[in-house]
Amino acid sequence: MLKKIEHIGIAVKDLNKANEIYSKILNSKPYKQEFVDSENVMTSFFKIGDSKIEILDSRDEQSAINKFIQKKGEGIHHIAFEVEDIQSEMQRLIEEGFHCLNEIPKKGADNKLVCFFHPKDSCGVLIELCQEIIT
Amino acid sequence: MLKKIEHIGIAVKDLNKANEIYSKILNSKPYKQEFVDSENVMTSFFKIGDSKIEILDSRDEQSAINKFIQKKGEGIHHIAFEVEDIQSEMQRLIEEGFHCLNEIPKKGADNKLVCFFHPKDSCGVLIELCQEIIT
Repeated sequence: MLKKIEHIGIAVKDLNKANEIYSKILNSKPYKQEFVDSENVMTSFFKIGDSKIEILDSRDEQSAINKFIQKKGEGIHHIAFEVEDIQSEMQRLIEEGFHCLNEIPKKGADNKLVCFFHPKDSCGVLIELCQEIIT
Repeated sequence: MLKKIEHIGIAVKDLNKANEIYSKILNSKPYKQEFVDSENVMTSFFKIGDSKIEILDSRDEQSAINKFIQKKGEGIHHIAFEVEDIQSEMQRLIEEGFHCLNEIPKKGADNKLVCFFHPKDSCGVLIELCQEIIT
């Protein structure tokens, strides 16, 4: 089951500038900044209600974030839904005909296991499933 | 204060097809379908956690949704944040330098007063504020 919108990912060209802008909009500061090896992006996170805004700034010309910005400009990159069991939800959606971009869940930002589904199956929306890593 | 992500608006070409797709993803049916006069769009709504997914299907070639799809394709169109007092939040953001697309809040879908802010000020993201209409 998808439990909630865990976060909205926004692709930007300048993390510091985006942090300033979203600090004004949300009237709060980012609660963390984190480099994500698997995506080669610097991220920052804002809390809003029961969800988060994730700012994504590419550190690599070949990264998915940089390619997205080159094609579509800055903007909303993905929606992430929280799940309790990422393996079973991944399997459920694959059986429903959705195309997963990962063979197995990978380590994402903010202490999560994540996987992505191709936007062609979901009206142009890149969908992430994420599960908190409990250690 | 912005309280939470009230909904994510997704621009689509075919409401019925999008309803089918998101019924599979979210494992639930849309709880309502509603025509919005002010935007000339048919909408449907899904609940997910404390937020909603709003599907937007244009009924007018000149509508903002249709222009968005022509330019960028189907995909996430806006983020809407719930506020308690739309007038004061609108004023606060205007004073912070954000450009509001409405002179005064207007009647939106799902029994809300809404206003929109120009994406050029917020890293390409069209931002909606919305306040429940209490009658």
